[in-house]
Amino acid sequence: MEKSHTNKRKILNDPIYGFITIPNETIFDLIEHPYFQRLRRISQLGLTYLVYPGAYHTRFHHALGAMHLMQKAIDVLQSKGHTISPEEKEAVCIAILLHDVGHGPYSHALEHSIVNNLSHETVSYLMMDRLNAEFDGKLTLAIDIFRNRYAKKFLHQLISSQLDMDRLDYLQRDSFYTGVSEGKINSDRLITMLNIADDELVIDAKGIYSVEKFIVARRLMYWQVYLHKTVLAAEFMLVNILKRAKELANNGEVLFCTSALKTFLYDKIDKTDFEKKPELLDIFARLDDYDILSAVKEWKHHDDRLLAMLCNQLTERRLLKIQIATEPFTEEQITEKREKAKQLFGFTDEEVKYLVFTDRITNNAYNPKKETINLLYKDGSIADVAEAADTFNIDAMARTVKKYFFCFPKECR
Amino acid sequence: MEKSHTNKRKILNDPIYGFITIPNETIFDLIEHPYFQRLRRISQLGLTYLVYPGAYHTRFHHALGAMHLMQKAIDVLQSKGHTISPEEKEAVCIAILLHDVGHGPYSHALEHSIVNNLSHETVSYLMMDRLNAEFDGKLTLAIDIFRNRYAKKFLHQLISSQLDMDRLDYLQRDSFYTGVSEGKINSDRLITMLNIADDELVIDAKGIYSVEKFIVARRLMYWQVYLHKTVLAAEFMLVNILKRAKELANNGEVLFCTSALKTFLYDKIDKTDFEKKPELLDIFARLDDYDILSAVKEWKHHDDRLLAMLCNQLTERRLLKIQIATEPFTEEQITEKREKAKQLFGFTDEEVKYLVFTDRITNNAYNPKKETINLLYKDGSIADVAEAADTFNIDAMARTVKKYFFCFPKECR
Amino acid sequence: MEKSHTNKRKILNDPIYGFITIPNETIFDLIEHPYFQRLRRISQLGLTYLVYPGAYHTRFHHALGAMHLMQKAIDVLQSKGHTISPEEKEAVCIAILLHDVGHGPYSHALEHSIVNNLSHETVSYLMMDRLNAEFDGKLTLAIDIFRNRYAKKFLHQLISSQLDMDRLDYLQRDSFYTGVSEGKINSDRLITMLNIADDELVIDAKGIYSVEKFIVARRLMYWQVYLHKTVLAAEFMLVNILKRAKELANNGEVLFCTSALKTFLYDKIDKTDFEKKPELLDIFARLDDYDILSAVKEWKHHDDRLLAMLCNQLTERRLLKIQIATEPFTEEQITEKREKAKQLFGFTDEEVKYLVFTDRITNNAYNPKKETINLLYKDGSIADVAEAADTFNIDAMARTVKKYFFCFPKECR
Amino acid sequence: MEKSHTNKRKILNDPIYGFITIPNETIFDLIEHPYFQRLRRISQLGLTYLVYPGAYHTRFHHALGAMHLMQKAIDVLQSKGHTISPEEKEAVCIAILLHDVGHGPYSHALEHSIVNNLSHETVSYLMMDRLNAEFDGKLTLAIDIFRNRYAKKFLHQLISSQLDMDRLDYLQRDSFYTGVSEGKINSDRLITMLNIADDELVIDAKGIYSVEKFIVARRLMYWQVYLHKTVLAAEFMLVNILKRAKELANNGEVLFCTSALKTFLYDKIDKTDFEKKPELLDIFARLDDYDILSAVKEWKHHDDRLLAMLCNQLTERRLLKIQIATEPFTEEQITEKREKAKQLFGFTDEEVKYLVFTDRITNNAYNPKKETINLLYKDGSIADVAEAADTFNIDAMARTVKKYFFCFPKECR
Repeated sequence: MEKSHTNKRKILNDPIYGFITIPNETIFDLIEHPYFQRLRRISQLGLTYLVYPGAYHTRFHHALGAMHLMQKAIDVLQSKGHTISPEEKEAVCIAILLHDVGHGPYSHALEHSIVNNLSHETVSYLMMDRLNAEFDGKLTLAIDIFRNRYAKKFLHQLISSQLDMDRLDYLQRDSFYTGVSEGKINSDRLITMLNIADDELVIDAKGIYSVEKFIVARRLMYWQVYLHKTVLAAEFMLVNILKRAKELANNGEVLFCTSALKTFLYDKIDKTDFEKKPELLDIFARLDDYDILSAVKEWKHHDDRLLAMLCNQLTERRLLKIQIATEPFTEEQITEKREKAKQLFGFTDEEVKYLVFTDRITNNAYNPKKETINLLYKDGSIADVAEAADTFNIDAMARTVKKYFFCFPKECR
Repeated sequence: MEKSHTNKRKILNDPIYGFITIPNETIFDLIEHPYFQRLRRISQLGLTYLVYPGAYHTRFHHALGAMHLMQKAIDVLQSKGHTISPEEKEAVCIAILLHDVGHGPYSHALEHSIVNNLSHETVSYLMMDRLNAEFDGKLTLAIDIFRNRYAKKFLHQLISSQLDMDRLDYLQRDSFYTGVSEGKINSDRLITMLNIADDELVIDAKGIYSVEKFIVARRLMYWQVYLHKTVLAAEFMLVNILKRAKELANNGEVLFCTSALKTFLYDKIDKTDFEKKPELLDIFARLDDYDILSAVKEWKHHDDRLLAMLCNQLTERRLLKIQIATEPFTEEQITEKREKAKQLFGFTDEEVKYLVFTDRITNNAYNPKKETINLLYKDGSIADVAEAADTFNIDAMARTVKKYFFCFPKECR
Repeated sequence: MEKSHTNKRKILNDPIYGFITIPNETIFDLIEHPYFQRLRRISQLGLTYLVYPGAYHTRFHHALGAMHLMQKAIDVLQSKGHTISPEEKEAVCIAILLHDVGHGPYSHALEHSIVNNLSHETVSYLMMDRLNAEFDGKLTLAIDIFRNRYAKKFLHQLISSQLDMDRLDYLQRDSFYTGVSEGKINSDRLITMLNIADDELVIDAKGIYSVEKFIVARRLMYWQVYLHKTVLAAEFMLVNILKRAKELANNGEVLFCTSALKTFLYDKIDKTDFEKKPELLDIFARLDDYDILSAVKEWKHHDDRLLAMLCNQLTERRLLKIQIATEPFTEEQITEKREKAKQLFGFTDEEVKYLVFTDRITNNAYNPKKETINLLYKDGSIADVAEAADTFNIDAMARTVKKYFFCFPKECR
Repeated sequence: MEKSHTNKRKILNDPIYGFITIPNETIFDLIEHPYFQRLRRISQLGLTYLVYPGAYHTRFHHALGAMHLMQKAIDVLQSKGHTISPEEKEAVCIAILLHDVGHGPYSHALEHSIVNNLSHETVSYLMMDRLNAEFDGKLTLAIDIFRNRYAKKFLHQLISSQLDMDRLDYLQRDSFYTGVSEGKINSDRLITMLNIADDELVIDAKGIYSVEKFIVARRLMYWQVYLHKTVLAAEFMLVNILKRAKELANNGEVLFCTSALKTFLYDKIDKTDFEKKPELLDIFARLDDYDILSAVKEWKHHDDRLLAMLCNQLTERRLLKIQIATEPFTEEQITEKREKAKQLFGFTDEEVKYLVFTDRITNNAYNPKKETINLLYKDGSIADVAEAADTFNIDAMARTVKKYFFCFPKECR
């Protein structure tokens, strides 16, 4: 980070926005905290770089980017005559900065393998409370806004809603680093159109096309990036690697791993343990991508043939074959591939489940039942974007799309 | 990687160029090889992300980008009537693809600590020869061009010269990911202006302004990125961490590390060992950023107080203070800080050298004594860009700038 | 135009694509021809700059841009194994270069006022034939492709179809110059996905998201730019200015105008006249934006109060008020405003129609009844993009949207 | 212009900055004024589009862009603790908005042909005074700042100095529209580095590389765009066309022209006339590119063979040949070409001077004798950028480069 003492403003380079300004000392100190610095070592998109080789950006950069957009959003709302105090502005910036602070490495994989029942939201809450204690209560308002306990609802909506600053930054950032230009959105224009009506975040009616573009872009990013089938295959391979390692650990096998990973691999830990043993949070805070991948790399040479095979394949990018369908795969299909795999590789019934498996994904670009995007018209009236005439059939967007996938070794084709 | 079987062309997304096309099966297979896949886990700019938080791009992506530019360069030269056979085109593409294949993680730090006297060029040569054997001699022409043993000199110059495709890609890529827009170059325009005269790579005279911009951009990237003082501090901290670890290993201390790192930490290995023991190359090929950083993270808890302190500071980005000067720092200055550090932290004379040290850097944007950039005029005459009248004083650029830096703990100020 | 004699390739700067290369001498000579050079003085988007102040780009630049994309499209198709001869490549480039050559200034306004029944297509045909005669028949194949009389249908589709190079360039160019980023498309990606099946232009199936983005972008450009209500008001004011001028000319009034404009203002000319009097085509070819706007500016001082008023208002951007509705405006609404205008300004019933008027616009982003975009799957099968499951409800896009607008002086509100 | 009544903020699209916000009603009304609206019809770079076909941007857009940057600059300076009152902010925004309001069409050509001795600065002063009267004195402070009569000097420097907002916008805008990427500057970064010391505008020392890049970019734009030899040839042809027309007008010949152009073509007008006859300013304010080019187009058919020839050549882009040299062209060279032209075309000695002529241009990227760019160091000291060690030899930049050019008909080669 380039700090400029002359002008008392800290500035960070960002390839997307040019510069990100760190508005004050408290926020600067939060960024310096080890809880936040660790996000430099946690990639935003996990193993997506196996498909999009530019996608190495981190949760650290995303959090800063979202805070940058938040500053702009607050400026726009203030310029439209809405009262937001300096304390509220600082608090909402802190809240968005820390919104993902509880993410572990390869978050989705981790949560489905070795730290079951411990969501990153829970860890975020715990970390924010710990930081608040360290910062003498300076984060109280931020936490209230984050947990939607503060009177001005629109402040929470800036952090979590259909058009929050989290989404605006990650769509732009993920699109930028993957090079998937179909997902590009114009966050500048959307933010310029933000407004407040009845204490709710709304969009000035003239921004309707930007909203449409945003919803379309988001849906395209789901299919092209977040649910890209090769990415799915890689992520589920990692889930299975960690599950297998945990199984071996439970059986008392020795596994190369850092001390922090060891805790979570060998001990049974759930949410209540975190509450009882405060040191667990600090151990969790030492985990990052380097703990996971250095272990995976070393396990290529493990005696367990299944673990070694999966680790080899993931590291050298020889991924499981993945098929996608709109209907569930049948028992017969699954059994057939499992039998083949057993014969080919000599694995047991239990082992082969790590190589041949099926699951389901869903995508839903705009769900008006859960939360709407409202337009504010010049006459002061408000309408859901889905009802705005002459534009686009929101039904098409709102429809939840469900898909099934099926993974198995290429050799079983 | 998205492979399209329909059209037999493999395409990769690149945020800078849009797409990179993989021209044929041999090159595709080389990219799939574990030697090359490991470059996905070796960052191009090492610890630079501690200053520029977008700079996580890898040597994998850079090598592909340089190959992309090479294809364009060959197309341009062919369109200007120069004969380049399909075999030569494939060979020069392979050569640029593999030009950095021998780089280890944090290459500069590694070469100055645990693998002394083994340059990445040497390892690249060894890996290319190994790959050539695996690929049944298909890389022979590529290796000849790479090592400048092929008759058409300009092919080698496309890989290594003032205006080679390596430089064109890395300047653009590093500028893009750091967000240092001052370093942006227009590789498209430069490539469009490439030409050949007397078997040498030259630039059409009308491209003189692009050449000037390129030299200026390169120099700015040196000061703003490659030799940024905070990056230097971080890199030398990593050098000292690895040196200290090696010292401890030599003394028989136990250090957490992957098996690959263990070989290089505990054994004395030099160039001749690589020639004698072929398996060493494969062990080296298992090393990447994850081996190094997972160890550094774990060593934060090592009994050696010096190692632990350096590892803690690097991981949490509490870096040594660094001063820059145009004159060497004096013995008195160094001694003073070392004494302070000894008192403050209780280290010995030997130990304190890891915390208080000085060294020298040089930068030289254009060195006409070593290698010139030649312009080709419409009348067929050729002139060094430095002699082209009315443009810019190349002397200013050609002057080597030497600077001295001095690192010490912030507490010693 | 920067010509480079050294390398026999002519290169033009383009802010969008970087460079446009002029592939050969014939095309260079066509660009130099006065018929084509006049397009430098005909803006692509007419009066749109009154809303989007960057939108001054010309038909000249668009035609060159479309030719640039055509070269890339042909390269892609050839690389996928489709045979396209050098003669066909040149012809299709010429055809796209000249596809709009017959456009007059403010084409839509002109065709609805002083040159009724003479479409720009007709003029393009006439100009191409004239050029073909001047160029000794070198354009015959280009004309055959342009008029869809050539066996390989896909060549015509590259010039005129849902995904032709005309559209790809103008969407990108109009989006770029207006700054309406919602309309941005990735022509590079779309072109990379082009293919041929059964002699028809198709898109590789993996390009489905790019196609979706393209259709959405196109529709957004219609609402935000091409049918922007303020632009409509300005264009219809220009139509009425020219109609009024023609009316006055018919009555023998003296009107300032260039000699070329005089011919079309004072004489009754239709399509058959163009066939009978070859010199008319050359007079038409002298018309450009400067003839029209210099006259409009001068007519601000004309004795006819109605003409002067309209010209004043257009020049100083005090445009008529425009309302948009999904239902037609009623006779009562129209009569009421007309009466007001008569009283306020003292105009007659006939005159007031130039100030108070209504009309209808329609928009339709994708019309599968007329022409489909077909996807080519890996198994060789083909399907309309509208039928591709799991993506988007093409029905929403295909629905024709009809709107009514109503213009009247601001003073009549 | 898209006006949003809902949020009381007017927003304009800009392809470079995304949006330009019009900060208040007074500035909105100034933009609506016919004096300012006419700038929509005056291109920023005159005939440069004959070389760079994207360069049609207008003085209107540039003035708005410079005002946009001014708002950002004021925000930055205020955030660094400098006091700038709302009245001063409005005034400095008005001053930069109107800094070029007195420019006529093809300003340089006009000033060297038909309106001798009347600089655009003089007209700007007159127009600002006239506007101030119309706006009840609201522009007084803006005019004082513009004319450097206000106490806070740095406000004037934001409008006119080495790093003023005029330059920052035009370099970026001209680079963007011509596509000459070598001229691209990072105005964002430069503005972020602005500061004030001793009432002078300075740059924070860490911005030294951005300043260097800026000076280099500016110099490259001079050679590649502003003094491009083909542009020079076209501009001098236009000068000679207008001179010839004026000569013919003086001799009583009839020339097609708008009434506004007629005044300046047929009457002898100088600065004192503007002071005596207030209506002259309004007639001047009616002149724009359309008056000039519509006349040039019509004069192609004038009886005067010399005028017709020049107009034909300019319109159809068959420009005079131009040679550049570092030494003056000799009398013999000039005489030789003039004799040839006389023989070839049958012109007199006087006439041939319009076709064969020589002149001189100079370029000077940074002139520290006239005005310096000062850097502000962390310790509060200030130094001229030229003295900053280790960067670049400012002498090379500061050297004035003088070149001579020589124009003659291509047929005289």
